[in-house]
Amino acid sequence: MVAPDEAPFLLACRRRPSPHVPVWFMRQAGRALPEYRARRGSGSILEAIHQPELVAELTLQPVRRYGVDAAILFSDIVVPVAAIGFGVDVVPGTGPVVTEPFRSKEDLGRLRPLEPEEDTPYVVEAVRQLASELSVPLIGFAGAPFTVASYLIEGGPSRSHARTKALMHAEPSTWWALLDALADLALASLRSQVRAGAQAVQLFDSWAGALSAVDYAELVLPVTRRIFDGLADLDVPRIHFGVGTGELLGLMAEAGPDVVGVDWRVPIDVAWSRIGEDKAVQGNLDPAVCLAPWDVVETETRKILNQAGGRPGHVFNLGHGVLPDTDPAILERVVELVHNA
Amino acid sequence: MVAPDEAPFLLACRRRPSPHVPVWFMRQAGRALPEYRARRGSGSILEAIHQPELVAELTLQPVRRYGVDAAILFSDIVVPVAAIGFGVDVVPGTGPVVTEPFRSKEDLGRLRPLEPEEDTPYVVEAVRQLASELSVPLIGFAGAPFTVASYLIEGGPSRSHARTKALMHAEPSTWWALLDALADLALASLRSQVRAGAQAVQLFDSWAGALSAVDYAELVLPVTRRIFDGLADLDVPRIHFGVGTGELLGLMAEAGPDVVGVDWRVPIDVAWSRIGEDKAVQGNLDPAVCLAPWDVVETETRKILNQAGGRPGHVFNLGHGVLPDTDPAILERVVELVHNA
Repeated sequence: MVAPDEAPFLLACRRRPSPHVPVWFMRQAGRALPEYRARRGSGSILEAIHQPELVAELTLQPVRRYGVDAAILFSDIVVPVAAIGFGVDVVPGTGPVVTEPFRSKEDLGRLRPLEPEEDTPYVVEAVRQLASELSVPLIGFAGAPFTVASYLIEGGPSRSHARTKALMHAEPSTWWALLDALADLALASLRSQVRAGAQAVQLFDSWAGALSAVDYAELVLPVTRRIFDGLADLDVPRIHFGVGTGELLGLMAEAGPDVVGVDWRVPIDVAWSRIGEDKAVQGNLDPAVCLAPWDVVETETRKILNQAGGRPGHVFNLGHGVLPDTDPAILERVVELVHNA
Repeated sequence: MVAPDEAPFLLACRRRPSPHVPVWFMRQAGRALPEYRARRGSGSILEAIHQPELVAELTLQPVRRYGVDAAILFSDIVVPVAAIGFGVDVVPGTGPVVTEPFRSKEDLGRLRPLEPEEDTPYVVEAVRQLASELSVPLIGFAGAPFTVASYLIEGGPSRSHARTKALMHAEPSTWWALLDALADLALASLRSQVRAGAQAVQLFDSWAGALSAVDYAELVLPVTRRIFDGLADLDVPRIHFGVGTGELLGLMAEAGPDVVGVDWRVPIDVAWSRIGEDKAVQGNLDPAVCLAPWDVVETETRKILNQAGGRPGHVFNLGHGVLPDTDPAILERVVELVHNA
């Protein structure tokens, strides 16, 4: 465990002055790293995360390589639903695939509460190991109800989220029951990760940006708020993130996180004013920019630092996950630049 | 040809009073219609569009079925690049697939100007037939340079547009040469469609919403403006559309269209104020909502009509294309509701 008063990442999440702007990268543990490909092998991520020592190693790799200010547990947002037996796998190159998608209220019976110590002991064990080994805070995470619901209902990744939206509008009572069950899973998982040593949590509502503000406010926000409220007593920073959420940033802030993550579509100063000065912000370099030569990456990184203006409460990150073709050397230089800015 | 002063769609595009709010649906010709599936057969859309009579029939079907106020040519945004031999096919269920993607400036040699009468005589012929048969205006269309470039560079549909953005930032001179060539294709195609009888045009920059406003303004907008400027003398309404463009609406309006299309993420009154009162707006019912029961669709449709406030200059449409699972009867009722509002 890292002393909270000394970790730049935790200080920034609390909007307290920090010796440098902290930085980490979504999906920093993963395909861009040769040492990851060497250790990971093939097969589903769900098999890999059953091995706490492997998970600890994959989580540590980017901390060693990049010198980032936080580690994020190597895991996946569908781990809890998979662990309670909903029938989910994560297919390499595709993403989560659900054998029998959620179709009607009868499928609610296929969901049950998560007992983290029994259902995902390997997650708890990996977090414990990491908490004792890490020199930077560990971020635990979970998928937010809307995004996980979309995978369950669509049966896999979707561009339109059409069935999800249809259910949401057509069968509100089923929708709320599903979201409540998924909120309970996220809450149980996040609380267990914090109890095991995670010093911050991130709730990924990756696809919430597919919704209009009205639908988000009426049909998603209330359960998200319940999750953040349910974490308040743990006294760890709570981060909330989704892509394409320019229209939703104010509402996502209302849901109660301490930090709101922002993608590259909105300049970070504009995003911050939508989120509110009483929250910290995280972001927002376009991961695709990291495929360009260094001088381009440098210009874009400096632009973001300037926009954030050196105010306490900025956690530097990408606007979405690291892309597989990224040169790790570029990310190393981003960390160096952010730390020395 | 329809008398421009009598067609509600053309009047609304010019922000002139119209007897009713006009409505059409992006992808109205297509998979949601049983009569489409009956006539279309299997195989690539690129084969289908070589048959002017088939194209005319598929274009007419939704006009008959739904009673919409405009027809849109049954075609695809990759038709011009395919016609000049770049090596593009449209794979059912996937989208455009490029055999040898655009990788470097050497690939510029694979692009040449489009001679519509020689390269796509079947398109010109289909438009001519339709212009003589239709009782509503025909909309011609083309893909905007950024979106078409993304297909050529990525080799197919992409969530991240990573290679496209990398090229855009890393090799500006190649980028501009590519975008200029694609702008010339779009312009030649659109001009030929209007000459053959199309009474409005829509330029689809479907994926422009993946860009930050700064990148859009600096690296895309100038060529888009050149296209709209190059159509000005034809005196037909020019519509511009992309999804997830909330942050870009003002810039897309600056590019010079008469009408800006909006997806469902921004309420249409908010969108209109971003676009400017001197333009018409088109949109913005979430196509996923159309999979819900009628009472939900009705509520959402009325909400949009109320937000638009009955001001001249609103063309009702979906916020993106009709989804394949849509019940045609729902769209029929939307048309009826919009017409009688």
